[in-house]
Amino acid sequence: MEQQYPITQRSKAKRLRERATYDVEAVYALLDASLLCHIAYVVDGQPFCTPTTFWRRGNLVVWHGSVGSRMLREQAAKHLEVCLTVSHLDSVVVTRSAFGHSVNYRSAMLFGRAELVEDPDEKLLESRLVMDHFLPGRSGLVVPPTPSELKQVSFLKMNIEEAVVKIRNYPASHEPPQHRDHEVWAGQIPIETRIREPVPCELLDPSIAKGPDIARYREGARLDETLSQIRREAQKQP
Amino acid sequence: MEQQYPITQRSKAKRLRERATYDVEAVYALLDASLLCHIAYVVDGQPFCTPTTFWRRGNLVVWHGSVGSRMLREQAAKHLEVCLTVSHLDSVVVTRSAFGHSVNYRSAMLFGRAELVEDPDEKLLESRLVMDHFLPGRSGLVVPPTPSELKQVSFLKMNIEEAVVKIRNYPASHEPPQHRDHEVWAGQIPIETRIREPVPCELLDPSIAKGPDIARYREGARLDETLSQIRREAQKQP
Repeated sequence: MEQQYPITQRSKAKRLRERATYDVEAVYALLDASLLCHIAYVVDGQPFCTPTTFWRRGNLVVWHGSVGSRMLREQAAKHLEVCLTVSHLDSVVVTRSAFGHSVNYRSAMLFGRAELVEDPDEKLLESRLVMDHFLPGRSGLVVPPTPSELKQVSFLKMNIEEAVVKIRNYPASHEPPQHRDHEVWAGQIPIETRIREPVPCELLDPSIAKGPDIARYREGARLDETLSQIRREAQKQP
Repeated sequence: MEQQYPITQRSKAKRLRERATYDVEAVYALLDASLLCHIAYVVDGQPFCTPTTFWRRGNLVVWHGSVGSRMLREQAAKHLEVCLTVSHLDSVVVTRSAFGHSVNYRSAMLFGRAELVEDPDEKLLESRLVMDHFLPGRSGLVVPPTPSELKQVSFLKMNIEEAVVKIRNYPASHEPPQHRDHEVWAGQIPIETRIREPVPCELLDPSIAKGPDIARYREGARLDETLSQIRREAQKQP
């Protein structure tokens, strides 16, 4: 694997080059810290932007849904070009001048073509990863999918052809210096996505405790850090 | 204003109709609870999915950025069709059967055409709303944009032609009933996006306190609820 994705017309950051990187490891790190992405695709000239959960397997990203979903049907039938984006909002940056206001964020934008997972073994693997990627070992604990249930689900995959990570992480003092004496509060309002205490199903026998798959989601922990930690542990497995 | 957006080929939910609504008020409520959206658009057949901050003014949504941004240049020059999506991840739903695993979420998908804000007065209004929408009154406190700064920024707007809100909010017991006796932990892992205590700029004179615009962002509050509350208060203003 190359250490950088190729920088092309579609992936090259047109602005703010200091914040952009095409490093494979930086792209993987941001994907691995994410559970939700937004996928842009085009049907008869009309763009759609669909939020969905996804996971990464090597240089592939994978998503899934009902075979009846418009997104999956169109993407599978036409091997569509897609742009898959993850983003994390980190803070609102409040400055002394109107012009300096901004947000700090991390995003990854990926380009490639959607492809239906057709091989039965590969589909079975993804049907486990849809759980095990986020809840390691879960597929061995639950009722496995029946053949009829598997037929109701499509998995789409995309080989990452190009990708760019953009990160903005500037303090409120990053604004025209002539404004720094203006007397108004300036700073950052930090934003974080966190986990709350898992809530048992109302039908659950109280004697059934959380397994290690669920216990990794600790009350108050950041979601991005928790997901990254799960991936790091999975990579250590033999 | 109609109370519902028209249900068309592009906006009609193909699946899970019980979760979809086309009500204008439901669309506005979800937009008003959001700071970040993802915009899908097409340049020469290639889809792009760009995260950006946005705000709503009546039936318009507005976003902005550098005049050098590819997204804004292309959208403005070609009056492009866009699909603007906001989404909130509320929980990971962990069930007894593989097939039942899912996420609970709220999303709004909007369709329309991007249009450059060209009228100088309208541009000046949006240059205030980019702050005041989130930080009420902020534009009156800060150094206003210079004519040169205003030239460096483009504002794009879109009249919402069609829109659909989808909400999934099912408990872990929403799975095939024959699996409910399988003995494994089931429930939800709640996910929330929260505000942390605002952090002053390292150059700020400690005698300068937070104004009411910043004080609305209370440590530990949910971002979506805080933004909704700011909008409700703004609507009460004479």
